[in-house]
Amino acid sequence: MDCYVEPIARLINELSKLPGVGSKTAQRLAFYIINMPGEEVNQLASAIAEVKDKIRYCQICQNITDVSPCRICVSVQRDPSVICVVEDPRDVIAMERTRDFRGLYHVLHGVISPMNGIGPDDIKIKELINRVSDDKVKEVILATNPNVEGEATAVYISRLLKPMGIKVTRIAHGLPVGGDLEYADEVTLSKALEGRREM
Amino acid sequence: MDCYVEPIARLINELSKLPGVGSKTAQRLAFYIINMPGEEVNQLASAIAEVKDKIRYCQICQNITDVSPCRICVSVQRDPSVICVVEDPRDVIAMERTRDFRGLYHVLHGVISPMNGIGPDDIKIKELINRVSDDKVKEVILATNPNVEGEATAVYISRLLKPMGIKVTRIAHGLPVGGDLEYADEVTLSKALEGRREM
Repeated sequence: MDCYVEPIARLINELSKLPGVGSKTAQRLAFYIINMPGEEVNQLASAIAEVKDKIRYCQICQNITDVSPCRICVSVQRDPSVICVVEDPRDVIAMERTRDFRGLYHVLHGVISPMNGIGPDDIKIKELINRVSDDKVKEVILATNPNVEGEATAVYISRLLKPMGIKVTRIAHGLPVGGDLEYADEVTLSKALEGRREM
Repeated sequence: MDCYVEPIARLINELSKLPGVGSKTAQRLAFYIINMPGEEVNQLASAIAEVKDKIRYCQICQNITDVSPCRICVSVQRDPSVICVVEDPRDVIAMERTRDFRGLYHVLHGVISPMNGIGPDDIKIKELINRVSDDKVKEVILATNPNVEGEATAVYISRLLKPMGIKVTRIAHGLPVGGDLEYADEVTLSKALEGRREM
């Protein structure tokens, strides 16, 4: 590595910090970038630099967005009485692909996971409780992943919401247990949405 | 893809242009970048943006460098009477790792490959001939990869150089035939350098 001149060594070092990119892959990417047209290199660099500036959390649903409130939260075509709670912004994309859900979302940005030191205060549960405090919300669909942490988080949230008189449902276990919402196909996700049951 | 907001969709699009990065990997990298500390994101972006500006070809050896002539070409500790001809800047790094070679390099940036429409004029052979025209160069070591194109390029260059009265050698076939210089281990490369023979 130290044989490379400074700008290349620096680029290889920065690239190898990315997940799944080891030192050989970083070298291959670095040399590909060096041989790319200058314009494309600048587009890549500016896309990386700008994503952090332009992306923020929606003040309502906590999803990542470039305008706050986000387009889903302000849309008049969505039903504000139903909120679907997911772990991750990618899960919103997965749900949207089904074209079956016309309510709003709430993104937790994680799950309760005592093993990893993540408690209820480390994810966006407080924001969810504040949101459902007004009368408009009739149902909260818990669409956390069907694994141990996701189930535990769903149970935790349902115990907070039920005393408030809100209908709390869990997406059906049509999803393979231990799987990941993000990689589920549209049909399975639609089935899971249909078969939701009260907790 | 179109479900993502513009800055994320743009980043995913730019990342998926890189070799070995498909749409799922690009999404994973994009979300990793969004969650990276802002300072690291800027370092990555500037490393990418600057590598293209700062890197040029050395006017002597054609290797990629940030100063021209490069550090190897101007070094007083190197022997300017021996030139090692390689295909790629990464091959220079591989040779330097052996610590056995104290001469200079010449980087061809490719090999003659009629199948891919690459002729002798498309790689840096002309620059090599100009370089060895002065009296200082006594030996040219051809260290192109030991495959069909590499051998053909070595033969082509040796036929140009021999009439000029220069000793032309080829690194020994201690390297596994069909392999790649970049991935050879140091010992094999050292053996190949030792066993070079006149063409």
